[in-house]
Amino acid sequence: MTKIKPLSSMTTPRYADVATFFRLPIEKDLSKLDYCICGIPWDGGTTNRPGARHGPREIRTASSLIRTYHPSSLKSPYDKFQIADIGDCPVNPIDLEDSLFKIKNFYDKILDSGTLPLSIGGDHLISLPVLRSLAKNKPLGLFQFDSHSDTWDTYFGGFKYTHGTPFRRAIEENLIDPKKYVILGLRGGLYDPEDLRWAIEQGVTIITTDKFYEIGIKETIKIVIDILADTPTYFTFDIDGIDPTYAPGTGTPEVGGINVREAQILIRELSHLNFVGADVVEVSPPFDVNNITSLVAATIAFEILCTMTKTN
Amino acid sequence: MTKIKPLSSMTTPRYADVATFFRLPIEKDLSKLDYCICGIPWDGGTTNRPGARHGPREIRTASSLIRTYHPSSLKSPYDKFQIADIGDCPVNPIDLEDSLFKIKNFYDKILDSGTLPLSIGGDHLISLPVLRSLAKNKPLGLFQFDSHSDTWDTYFGGFKYTHGTPFRRAIEENLIDPKKYVILGLRGGLYDPEDLRWAIEQGVTIITTDKFYEIGIKETIKIVIDILADTPTYFTFDIDGIDPTYAPGTGTPEVGGINVREAQILIRELSHLNFVGADVVEVSPPFDVNNITSLVAATIAFEILCTMTKTN
Amino acid sequence: MTKIKPLSSMTTPRYADVATFFRLPIEKDLSKLDYCICGIPWDGGTTNRPGARHGPREIRTASSLIRTYHPSSLKSPYDKFQIADIGDCPVNPIDLEDSLFKIKNFYDKILDSGTLPLSIGGDHLISLPVLRSLAKNKPLGLFQFDSHSDTWDTYFGGFKYTHGTPFRRAIEENLIDPKKYVILGLRGGLYDPEDLRWAIEQGVTIITTDKFYEIGIKETIKIVIDILADTPTYFTFDIDGIDPTYAPGTGTPEVGGINVREAQILIRELSHLNFVGADVVEVSPPFDVNNITSLVAATIAFEILCTMTKTN
Amino acid sequence: MTKIKPLSSMTTPRYADVATFFRLPIEKDLSKLDYCICGIPWDGGTTNRPGARHGPREIRTASSLIRTYHPSSLKSPYDKFQIADIGDCPVNPIDLEDSLFKIKNFYDKILDSGTLPLSIGGDHLISLPVLRSLAKNKPLGLFQFDSHSDTWDTYFGGFKYTHGTPFRRAIEENLIDPKKYVILGLRGGLYDPEDLRWAIEQGVTIITTDKFYEIGIKETIKIVIDILADTPTYFTFDIDGIDPTYAPGTGTPEVGGINVREAQILIRELSHLNFVGADVVEVSPPFDVNNITSLVAATIAFEILCTMTKTN
Amino acid sequence: MTKIKPLSSMTTPRYADVATFFRLPIEKDLSKLDYCICGIPWDGGTTNRPGARHGPREIRTASSLIRTYHPSSLKSPYDKFQIADIGDCPVNPIDLEDSLFKIKNFYDKILDSGTLPLSIGGDHLISLPVLRSLAKNKPLGLFQFDSHSDTWDTYFGGFKYTHGTPFRRAIEENLIDPKKYVILGLRGGLYDPEDLRWAIEQGVTIITTDKFYEIGIKETIKIVIDILADTPTYFTFDIDGIDPTYAPGTGTPEVGGINVREAQILIRELSHLNFVGADVVEVSPPFDVNNITSLVAATIAFEILCTMTKTN
Amino acid sequence: MTKIKPLSSMTTPRYADVATFFRLPIEKDLSKLDYCICGIPWDGGTTNRPGARHGPREIRTASSLIRTYHPSSLKSPYDKFQIADIGDCPVNPIDLEDSLFKIKNFYDKILDSGTLPLSIGGDHLISLPVLRSLAKNKPLGLFQFDSHSDTWDTYFGGFKYTHGTPFRRAIEENLIDPKKYVILGLRGGLYDPEDLRWAIEQGVTIITTDKFYEIGIKETIKIVIDILADTPTYFTFDIDGIDPTYAPGTGTPEVGGINVREAQILIRELSHLNFVGADVVEVSPPFDVNNITSLVAATIAFEILCTMTKTN
Repeated sequence: MTKIKPLSSMTTPRYADVATFFRLPIEKDLSKLDYCICGIPWDGGTTNRPGARHGPREIRTASSLIRTYHPSSLKSPYDKFQIADIGDCPVNPIDLEDSLFKIKNFYDKILDSGTLPLSIGGDHLISLPVLRSLAKNKPLGLFQFDSHSDTWDTYFGGFKYTHGTPFRRAIEENLIDPKKYVILGLRGGLYDPEDLRWAIEQGVTIITTDKFYEIGIKETIKIVIDILADTPTYFTFDIDGIDPTYAPGTGTPEVGGINVREAQILIRELSHLNFVGADVVEVSPPFDVNNITSLVAATIAFEILCTMTKTN
Repeated sequence: MTKIKPLSSMTTPRYADVATFFRLPIEKDLSKLDYCICGIPWDGGTTNRPGARHGPREIRTASSLIRTYHPSSLKSPYDKFQIADIGDCPVNPIDLEDSLFKIKNFYDKILDSGTLPLSIGGDHLISLPVLRSLAKNKPLGLFQFDSHSDTWDTYFGGFKYTHGTPFRRAIEENLIDPKKYVILGLRGGLYDPEDLRWAIEQGVTIITTDKFYEIGIKETIKIVIDILADTPTYFTFDIDGIDPTYAPGTGTPEVGGINVREAQILIRELSHLNFVGADVVEVSPPFDVNNITSLVAATIAFEILCTMTKTN
Repeated sequence: MTKIKPLSSMTTPRYADVATFFRLPIEKDLSKLDYCICGIPWDGGTTNRPGARHGPREIRTASSLIRTYHPSSLKSPYDKFQIADIGDCPVNPIDLEDSLFKIKNFYDKILDSGTLPLSIGGDHLISLPVLRSLAKNKPLGLFQFDSHSDTWDTYFGGFKYTHGTPFRRAIEENLIDPKKYVILGLRGGLYDPEDLRWAIEQGVTIITTDKFYEIGIKETIKIVIDILADTPTYFTFDIDGIDPTYAPGTGTPEVGGINVREAQILIRELSHLNFVGADVVEVSPPFDVNNITSLVAATIAFEILCTMTKTN
Repeated sequence: MTKIKPLSSMTTPRYADVATFFRLPIEKDLSKLDYCICGIPWDGGTTNRPGARHGPREIRTASSLIRTYHPSSLKSPYDKFQIADIGDCPVNPIDLEDSLFKIKNFYDKILDSGTLPLSIGGDHLISLPVLRSLAKNKPLGLFQFDSHSDTWDTYFGGFKYTHGTPFRRAIEENLIDPKKYVILGLRGGLYDPEDLRWAIEQGVTIITTDKFYEIGIKETIKIVIDILADTPTYFTFDIDGIDPTYAPGTGTPEVGGINVREAQILIRELSHLNFVGADVVEVSPPFDVNNITSLVAATIAFEILCTMTKTN
Repeated sequence: MTKIKPLSSMTTPRYADVATFFRLPIEKDLSKLDYCICGIPWDGGTTNRPGARHGPREIRTASSLIRTYHPSSLKSPYDKFQIADIGDCPVNPIDLEDSLFKIKNFYDKILDSGTLPLSIGGDHLISLPVLRSLAKNKPLGLFQFDSHSDTWDTYFGGFKYTHGTPFRRAIEENLIDPKKYVILGLRGGLYDPEDLRWAIEQGVTIITTDKFYEIGIKETIKIVIDILADTPTYFTFDIDGIDPTYAPGTGTPEVGGINVREAQILIRELSHLNFVGADVVEVSPPFDVNNITSLVAATIAFEILCTMTKTN
Repeated sequence: MTKIKPLSSMTTPRYADVATFFRLPIEKDLSKLDYCICGIPWDGGTTNRPGARHGPREIRTASSLIRTYHPSSLKSPYDKFQIADIGDCPVNPIDLEDSLFKIKNFYDKILDSGTLPLSIGGDHLISLPVLRSLAKNKPLGLFQFDSHSDTWDTYFGGFKYTHGTPFRRAIEENLIDPKKYVILGLRGGLYDPEDLRWAIEQGVTIITTDKFYEIGIKETIKIVIDILADTPTYFTFDIDGIDPTYAPGTGTPEVGGINVREAQILIRELSHLNFVGADVVEVSPPFDVNNITSLVAATIAFEILCTMTKTN
C-alpha cells in the first residue's frame, strides 16, 4: 500500500490549501490506517469559559507549520505507519448526553478497526466517552498532564458530568486503574482542602507543578515509567497543564506552570510506554492570542504521535 | 423612599469601582423596585460560536459609560422609578433543562414582586423560560429585533431547545400570540426555502432587513405599532440584528444589517407600546473587539429601559 | 449524477470539521463540475501591506457560516448546478513570473473543462493570469468593484507587474475591451492628478464612490448594465472597495467607502449580465479583526456565485 | 524656494522609512513654512479612558497611506504651499499646568512666524492653550465636530481644566465668540438635563447628530457657513464625533454617530470659510483596533489641510 | 461574627455575577474587617504609557478565577480572618495633588480602623500617599519587587511626583528606613550611570535580576529576611518586575525578567516577615493581552494575601 | 565633533515625537558615523507568513523604550562612538532580484565609508546582499542565532533565493567560511532527515536548542568563542531563535525555544569577538501581539550594539 504522506511544503506553501491535521489527507476508511487523528469539537462540559469546541479547526490550521521528521530522532511516524486525519467525530453542541453517546459510538468503530486514535478536543469531558470505548475490555493506565485533577465529584448541585469530573467517573466505571494513574502538573488554588483526598485514597499518584520543579524532570519521568511501564495506557494532555503565557487560549488558566519545552522533553521520554490512545484537550481558540495555543497544541500532538509510534 | 440613583461620574470616575449595570446599586430586595435589570449568564442553547454566558459581566463594565438622562427627551428613568441591578439569575452551564428550570423559578419571583424585568443574556434560548414566567396567565405580544427568526423546529436530529427555537416553543406553549408577533431585521441565507413558512402560517409578521430599507423606518414603526398597540408585549433584542461591523461580538453574525442609530430611533418610537419585559441577548464577549459590542448592547439596553419607562 | 451539496449544519455544527468553501466537498475532477471555487493564495504583487496569500484559507473558515439558499430569491445555486471547492491553485510565494505562469496554466485547464471559475485571492495581480486564460479567444468585458483603478503603468522604477497594474496590462494584452470596462468605487487621494487619464482615454467608465452616492444605486446599476449587457464579462471584486470599517483586513484601506449591504444589492441586480468568471481579492487576514473581513468576503462570494448562476 | 514634497511612494514603499505626518520632511525652521503639522502628545485632561498622548505617533504611522492629491479636486496643498511636519510640541505628562504653559509658549512662536498650524492631539484640553495663542488678539469663530459639547464647568469637585471644559474656558477667556461657535455631532446621554443650557445661553449653535440626520448635510453646511462666513475661525475635530464603529480608538465613545464619508463631505464644503488653525483630537491608540482610528484621523487631517489651503 | 466568604463557584459559575476581588462581598464598614482589599484607580504619575487607572476593575474581573485555599498550604485566609473588597479609593484623574490628598485621607481611615490593606493600583506613585498614612508614626521597612528602582529625583525639569520617584520621596519624608529597604528585580538600561547611586548611598539593598539568577532564589530570600525580619514592613509589587511576556499589560515593560512561578515561590517564603500593608501596581489593561496580566496580578495578590495572613 | 545622543526622555516623553532607532537622530552622511543602524524593509524571500517588511518601522517605535546605558556595564555606546539611524535601505517589494541588487549597492556605500552597520530586517534573505558587500574581500565568520539553519538548497522547484537559503548561497559564494560558522538555537521538525547534512559536511557547527540546554550557556559561549575568536565575524540574529511566547511576531515560529534573558546573556559574553556587522531579522509585526516582539528585537539590537562597540 502506498504510504500516506503530508502535503509537501516544497510544492504547496504551508499556508496554502485546505487545512487538515499535519497536512495529512482526509481518509474516512479506517481499515487503511494504523493511527488516526480525529477532532472532537465539543465543549458542553465546560463550567467556566467555553470555546474548546473550536479547537480542532484551529489546531488543524496551526498544524500546517509542523514538519514531517522529528527534530531529535530524525524519524517520521509517516515512514512507519499509515496515519491520516479522519475528520471530526459527531457531537451535539446542545445536548451533553447525546454527545457522550455519539462520541462513544464513533470510537467503538475506531476500536473495532484496530486503529489507534489521537484525539483533538474539545473540553476534558470528551476523554470519558473515548475511554468508555477504548477501555471496554479492561481498565487502562492513565497519564494525565494537567493543572487540575478533574477528579471532582459533582458541580452545581449534583451534576456528575463536567470537564472537572471525567476521571472520577472513569475510575468509578472501572475504565482506569487508579493505581496506574499519574497526574502531572497540578497547581492553582483549591475550593476545598479535601479536593484531592478521594483521588489519593484510590491510589492515584499526583505530581504537582511544585513537586515537578523540586524533583526535576528526570526523577519525574522515572516515577511515571515505574508506575505505567507494563500497562496499556491512555495519555491525556490538557493544554492548561502548560503555563498560560505559553498557551493562553484555554478556559481555566492557572499561572505559574510548566513550559512547552519541558513538556516536549517529557513526552519524548515516555516512548517506552505502551500508549493505546491519546488526546490533547481544552484549547479554546476564542481566548487565544494569534493562534499560539493552537500551535503549541499541534506541536505537542506531533510529539505525542511520535511517542505513540516510537519514532522519537 | 429615597430614589435609587447611579453612582455619580462627577465624583467617581466612570472607570472606577465595581461595575454594575448603569452604575446602579445592587439591590436584591425586589419589593423596593419598579424595574430590575438582571443578568442571565448562560449560552447552553448555542449551536455555533459560544460565549454569550460572558455577556452580563462585560455589558456591566461597558455600561459605566452610559449617563443618566436620555439625549433627546432629557428625561431619566431613575427620576420616575426605582430601578436597580439585581445581580445574575442562577443558571447551570452544563445542564440545559436545569437552567431552563432555574431561570423560570427566578423570574416567577420577579413576576410575583410586580417588578418589570430587563434581562441581559445569555443566548436567545433564555427568552423562553423568561416568557414561561411572564406569560403564565395570558399570551403576550412579541417584538423581536433579530437577523434570524429563531422559530426553527429542531436541530441535530430532533432536539427542541436551542437558541434557534425559543419562539417556536413559545407559540406552541401559548406564551406568545403569533398574530401579535413582529420580527424585524431578518437577513442572511437559509438552510431551506421553507424555513420561514411555519411562522408565517401562524400569523407572524416578518419585516426583513431588505424590506426595512425598502419601506423606511417610519413605515416600519407604523406596522409594528398597528400590530402591537393594544397588547402587553415582550421586547427581545438580539444583538445580531445589528450589522456585525457595529456589533462583532456575537455567535452568528450576518453581514449587511441595520446600524445602531437606526435601532436607537426605532426603539424610541416604540414608547407608546406596553412593554412588560425585555431582553438584550447574544452578546458574546470572546468574539468582541475592544468591548464595542457590549457598549452597543449597554446603549441599546438604556434606550429600551427609557422606552419601557416612557422616558424618551 | 448526484447533486453536490454543502455539509448539512443540521447534522454537523457549523464550526466543525475541515473548512472548505461554503462547506462544499473538495472535488479535483473538473469534468464533474459546472462551477468551481478555487483559492489563489498569492500576494507577490503587493506594494504595501502583504498577507493576501492567507485569504483563501481564512475565507474557507469564515464561509462555514454561509447557508445554502439565497435570502431574497430563496433559490440555491447547488440545486441548479454542480459546484465544488477545487482546492488552491499552485503558486510560488517567492517568484512573481513563475506564479503568473502557474496560475495561467491552472486556469487553462479550468477553461478547457468548461467549468466557470470563482476565484478567491490573493492580491489583485492574480486577475491578470486568470484573464490570460479566460480571455484567450476574445477580449472580455470587465466589472471591477474597487477603491483603486489598478490601471497604473509601473512602480518602483519601471516594474510592470504589481497589484496596481493588472488591468493596464489586460487592456494592453487585449484581454479586456476598455469600452466594456466599468470601475465602481474609486476614492482616496492620488499620487498624480493624471493618474486616471490613461484609463479614461481608453474608454473605461469610472464611477467614483462620490458619484455612486450622488446618482444612487439604481442609476449606477443602469449604467453598468447598459455597458456590459451584451458581453461575456469578468467580475473582479476588490474587498477594499468596501469601507475598511466593514472590511479592515486589506492591504490598502481607503476610508469613506461603500458598505456591505449596498454591495450586496448591487451584485444581486447584475444577474442579468453574462459572467464567465469572477474573483474576490485583497483580503489580508493578518490585518483583519476577528475574521470579519473574511466573513464579508465569503458573503460577497456567495452573492457573486448566485449572480453567476442566476439564482438570486 | 524648492517646494517641500512628501516622500514618493513610487520610490520608497509606503510602509518604509521613518514615519512623519503625510511622509513630509521634518522641518523645525518655521520661517520656511506656510502651514505646519504639529503633534501635541498629551492627555492629562482626560477624565475617563486615557491614551490620547499616543495619538501623534500612531497618526504619523497611519498617514503614510495618504497620497498627495485630493480625490475630488485633483489638487494638492503641497503644490500651493510650503508644509511640513514640525515634530511634537513640548508637554509634561505629569503636570497639567506646566503642559498648558508649554503648549501656549510653543504656539506663540508658531503664531509669530505667521505659519498656520494643524495640530494632532492629544485630548481635547489641548485646544485651550492653542486658542490662548491663536486668539490672543481677538476672539475667533469656532467650528467643533464632536459628540460632546466640552462646555461643562467643573469636574470632581471644582476642577476647571479637563477635556470636558476647554470651550467653556475659551468663552470665559474671550478666545471664542460664542455667537460664532457651532457644535456639530452631539449625542449620547447627559449627566444633567441642564448640561447644555449655559452654552445655549451664550449663543452657541448646537446641531445634534439627531438634527444632522433630520435636516441633512446640505442644510447643515448652510447653517455653519451662515454663522462663520465672515470670521477667522478655528476648526476642532474630535474623533469621537465619528461613530465608534468607524473610530473605536477614543476615550469616550458614543455609539450611533456620523460616519467618515459624511464627515469628509462636510469638511470639503467648508473650504469657503477662513480657518486660521485646526486640530484633530482624542485619538487613543491603546483602545484602537488595527490602527483604523489613526487612519481615519489621518484622512480627516488631510481633508482639513485641503480645506484650510482651499485645495479641495 | 459570621465568616465572610467568597461566592461559591460550585453554585454561581465563576464568570457570573458582579466582579469583586476574589468574589468577596463589598463591605464598606471597616470595623468588621481584619484585612481589606482596595482599588486605587489612578495613573496620574505615569511618565510613559498610561492605563493603570483601569487596573482595579480588570483585576477584579480576573480574580474570579482565584480559588479559596492556597495550593501548597491548603489553608485559606478567609478561614482565619475577616476580609472583604471595600471598593475603590477616591481619586481625581486630572489632578495629582488632589489625588495624593484623597488617597492619604482614605488610608488614614483604614489605619484608624486597624484593618490591614492590600491595595490594587494604579501606578506606582499611589504607594506614596498610602505610606504617608501607614508610616505616620514610624518609618517602615520596604520590600519592593520591581524592574525599576523608582528612586529617581525629578522628571521633565524638576517635577518631584511621578511613578518613578515615590520611594525617594518616601525616604526623604522618613516613611521608609532605607536600611530596611530591599529592591528585587532591577534590570533594563539606565538614563545615567549614576541613576542608582543615591539609593545605594542611603543604604538601600538592590538585588538586580542578573544577581537574582546568579545567587538563586534561596539566597535571595535569605538576604531579604535578614534585612527585614524584625521590622513592620510594606510590600510593594510592581507587575513590571515580572517578565513582560508573562505580564504584557504594563506601561514600562523591561524584557528579560523574572517569571511568575519564581515570584510566587518568593512571596510564599516571606510569610515570616511582618507585613502591615501591601500593593500590586502598574497593571495597565489597555496594553494587556486577553487579560493575562490581570490574572497574574490577581494570583500574585492572593499569594501576598496569604503571606500577610500567614496562610501559606 | 559633538557626540550624537538619543533624545532625552527627561525632556521629551518616550512616547513623543517621531520614532527613530533608539531615539537617535537621522543622519544620512555616513562620513560622520562610526556605526549606523539601518532598516531593510523587505520580505520578498518569505516562503510562509509575510510581514517582516514592516519590521523596521515597528522596531523604531518600540525602541523608544530603550535607554542609553547598558544595565550591567553602566556604559553607553554613544559615549564612545558616533552612532545614528540612517533611515531605510532602498528595496523593491515586488522584485526579488532588484531588491538584492539595491541592498548590495547601498551596503557597498556603507562599507566604503568605514561605518559598521547594524541592520534591522526584513526577512532573513536580506543577510545575503549585506554579506555580498561586507565580505567582498574575504570570507567572514558567521554567528547565527536561529531556530532554522537557513542552509536549504532550493524551494518550490529549484528556486535558489528564499529566506531559507541565504547561508547556503553565502558559503557557495565564498562570503562565509563554513568552518567559522556557528548556528545556535535549531529546533523544530524537518522536512527531510538529510536537511542538515550539507551544512555539517561543509564544517558548520550546529548547537541545537536541545544541546544548548544540555551543555549550558557557559559551555555554549566557550564553543562559539573558540571557533570565532580570531575572525572578523558577522552576527545574524533571527528573532525566531527566541521562543515564540516571547516573540510571537514572526513568520515561522517554533515553540520550545530559548528565552530572551538567555539570549541577552549570551550576546553580552560575545563582546570579545570582532563583529564587523550584524542584523536582527524576521520580526513580522502583523503577527505580533501588542508590539512585544518589536520590543524584544529592540532590546536585542541594543545588546548587539553594545557587544559590537564593546560597551557591555
